[in-house]
Amino acid sequence: MRMKSYDLLREKIQKIADINGTMAVLAWDKETYLPAKANGLRSRQLATLSSISHEEYVSEETGELLAKSSRQRGLDIKAKKNIKVLTEDYLKSKKLPTSFIVERSMAESEAYHQWVLAKKDNRFELFAPALDKLIVLKRKEAEMLNEGKGLYNTLLDQFEPGSTTSLLDKLFTDVRKKLLPIIHEISEAKQVKSGFLQKKYNKDKQYDFGIYLLNAIGYDFDHGRQDISPHPFTIGFSPADVRITTRIDENDFSNMTWSTLHEAGHALYEQGLNPEEYGLPCGGAASLAIHESQSRLWENHVGRSLDFWQAHYPSLQKTFKPLKKVSIINFYKAINKVEPSFIRTESDELHYHIHVLIRYEIEKALIEDGLDAEGARTLWNEKYQKYLGLKIKNDAQGILQDVHWSHGSFGYFPTYSMGSFYAAQFFEQANTELPKLKEQIAKGNTFDLLKWLRENIHQHGRLYEAQQLCKKVTGKGLSLDPFVSYAKEKYSDIYGISFQI
Amino acid sequence: MRMKSYDLLREKIQKIADINGTMAVLAWDKETYLPAKANGLRSRQLATLSSISHEEYVSEETGELLAKSSRQRGLDIKAKKNIKVLTEDYLKSKKLPTSFIVERSMAESEAYHQWVLAKKDNRFELFAPALDKLIVLKRKEAEMLNEGKGLYNTLLDQFEPGSTTSLLDKLFTDVRKKLLPIIHEISEAKQVKSGFLQKKYNKDKQYDFGIYLLNAIGYDFDHGRQDISPHPFTIGFSPADVRITTRIDENDFSNMTWSTLHEAGHALYEQGLNPEEYGLPCGGAASLAIHESQSRLWENHVGRSLDFWQAHYPSLQKTFKPLKKVSIINFYKAINKVEPSFIRTESDELHYHIHVLIRYEIEKALIEDGLDAEGARTLWNEKYQKYLGLKIKNDAQGILQDVHWSHGSFGYFPTYSMGSFYAAQFFEQANTELPKLKEQIAKGNTFDLLKWLRENIHQHGRLYEAQQLCKKVTGKGLSLDPFVSYAKEKYSDIYGISFQI
Repeated sequence: MRMKSYDLLREKIQKIADINGTMAVLAWDKETYLPAKANGLRSRQLATLSSISHEEYVSEETGELLAKSSRQRGLDIKAKKNIKVLTEDYLKSKKLPTSFIVERSMAESEAYHQWVLAKKDNRFELFAPALDKLIVLKRKEAEMLNEGKGLYNTLLDQFEPGSTTSLLDKLFTDVRKKLLPIIHEISEAKQVKSGFLQKKYNKDKQYDFGIYLLNAIGYDFDHGRQDISPHPFTIGFSPADVRITTRIDENDFSNMTWSTLHEAGHALYEQGLNPEEYGLPCGGAASLAIHESQSRLWENHVGRSLDFWQAHYPSLQKTFKPLKKVSIINFYKAINKVEPSFIRTESDELHYHIHVLIRYEIEKALIEDGLDAEGARTLWNEKYQKYLGLKIKNDAQGILQDVHWSHGSFGYFPTYSMGSFYAAQFFEQANTELPKLKEQIAKGNTFDLLKWLRENIHQHGRLYEAQQLCKKVTGKGLSLDPFVSYAKEKYSDIYGISFQI
Repeated sequence: MRMKSYDLLREKIQKIADINGTMAVLAWDKETYLPAKANGLRSRQLATLSSISHEEYVSEETGELLAKSSRQRGLDIKAKKNIKVLTEDYLKSKKLPTSFIVERSMAESEAYHQWVLAKKDNRFELFAPALDKLIVLKRKEAEMLNEGKGLYNTLLDQFEPGSTTSLLDKLFTDVRKKLLPIIHEISEAKQVKSGFLQKKYNKDKQYDFGIYLLNAIGYDFDHGRQDISPHPFTIGFSPADVRITTRIDENDFSNMTWSTLHEAGHALYEQGLNPEEYGLPCGGAASLAIHESQSRLWENHVGRSLDFWQAHYPSLQKTFKPLKKVSIINFYKAINKVEPSFIRTESDELHYHIHVLIRYEIEKALIEDGLDAEGARTLWNEKYQKYLGLKIKNDAQGILQDVHWSHGSFGYFPTYSMGSFYAAQFFEQANTELPKLKEQIAKGNTFDLLKWLRENIHQHGRLYEAQQLCKKVTGKGLSLDPFVSYAKEKYSDIYGISFQI
């Protein structure tokens, strides 16, 4: 029997997925087990596979299969969506000439290299010229890809298909109007104690406790594993093999615990993708923000809730000496302490969005308003003073703290906040549809929640765009309100205040 | 500047090496860290990469580059050898039609699958039909590749280029004539005690001791690492990344120790290959037997010598309780105990070659004399009775013990014995050229030995064929005599006998 065009397309795209999944294995190995001096070889292997994958994707054959498939009748909704997304990606890939891809790749390598040096020695001037060069290239890229959406929007679209600056402007205006006042009110309340979290916590016992939590929330070790790496991450080669990593700080219990729950949230999403759609858009994540919504939901809405620790605190307390005399309420308060800090990745659930807000405002100006690296630095320091009352004393704690811009990732940061806001909106909905959820969580049972996420979010992959999915699941578009309600309820308890706003 | 043909050829072949090295990473991961239910995906990835690698290799482009390179002037000896070997391999690959490769691959998968079942349930009849089918295909393959060398020789040539059945017939005739009598004399002497090796040896301490040994003999952890796997192996992605694995049996000290030294010997070879010749024949191992010579040299000639343990036994004795009261001489005797056993991989240095002799005689008959699976089984049992006085009671301990034939590897076993004999011949030569070697080893210093191996063997890669290399290094072709001298000297001490032959 002659294969239909769409079947051939599937075969081709899934072959490319095998190559990309293999690159992911190489990347995983690089972060976990690569010997100290084997990196040169690893770069060679990655470059070779990446060029093969790219050539396969932009080949005439792919174009023909896409064209024929899009004329094929009787395809189901998933197949149609796959063809649509693949065609868009294909045409986008064709819009950027290879010479530009090479130039960009070199500029990114250079910028990353300079960023590492600059951060290490706290010398922004080492990074600024490379960043300026990269900004020019990213504007150029946005111009080539632009379809009347505007430059920043075009870059944003690569990370978060379908989202727009008008949505983001609205969200971040709300952050300023509704979230900042909450933070300010909390800052005037009596601070909670958390010093016991920074005592000695045995590494092996922490590791075991992490594994216990992973099992408890349904991470499937038959289709994944956990290893140690300097920066925790999740990487899925397919739903059959989704791996996470963690790091353990002997003098800080928080580090391992919530990074494990965060990565587990990402991993539960990937393990719940539809294996029949392997390698195809409908078998992949809807967007970065939806991905992040899953990690935040498990990290914060589940993992920093009093309910969750009612189930797990007794065994935690038994394991670690520093917690012996700490009540569950005081533990709960400590793990939700709100205070301003310089570093995004170390900040609490609320301040986090101020860090992102600042980056969003700056990167939009970088791409659209002709702002340069030096100007971005000035703006950064001004905004940290204005929003958080923090005086940046060195750039390593300021504009140099994040790797993203050195990778050429402009339009990435907002997906972190969007992810949190989606998480709040999804979790609110889950609680409505699963009225016993709070009780279940308090008994250590999160299986109904996972089932709900699988059915409503995971299994669809990219069948729906993020905003569409949000409407389908919650009946409304993305809004800050569920997050604000969540924050008010949670922190009024913890800090003993009733918010004025 | 226009690149010369040979440079383009190098580039092409090294790109294929990147793909093959990547497959090796996938294979390594499969044996060490792959989640229980991720094997289906892994097989997909391996199949895709393997087809890409094959297509790149047998492409017209490769053929043209080979043809042009072979006409290029002014190339050095390595380049010429690379072109020669690659051309031979290329022509061989072209001789086997894709349909045959697919058929063979399916027959091998089937045979392996049936072998696993048959071994588990000790039912040879489950494996026999698949083996018969595979034998027919391997004969066919040999016929297609045959260039007047004879069928078995042709298969042997794939594992051990340049070796012949006339060389093997001579070696194994000597095994029967010179080695068997030594074994028989030993069997009549008073047996040594070795029970203390099978006491409780803490797993973590064993692991640490393995790492200590690896460091001691110069294995480079900046370009490699050791992990745990069910079957120990060495895998090199390039000289920059050569990994080994070990297994640890808490109730048997021998298992970890000598498998670690064995794999380390393989790994030292791969770490010593010429990185400038990465991916090319002169950057690869000379042959399987030469590879095995390196593992046997470190496992046996170094690692089972009294000298070696004079350096390391004190720290070993301090670490493990069961050795506290065992003198170094009794330890040395125990680790060199000679006694017949059913299983090749568990046998001592001498009996080992009787196991290989039996397999050699049988597989030659399978390929050349029309012997079938059932006949092979009968012959197996007869020969174990005849040579070792052992009555095979079940096939799992008999003809089903090795995986090789189920993989279609006929002509592989002899390289194990050849490797041992090369090891003896090389080690004899090293001792002649490094008169202080014994003393150095007794002080824990094997660096001159490693340097000698690097200079005389490792750095050449496939520049010389195994036999050529042997003549270059030792002045003579491969012979059993150095092994026999070594065995006589060693075991006359251990068993207190002076051999009659």
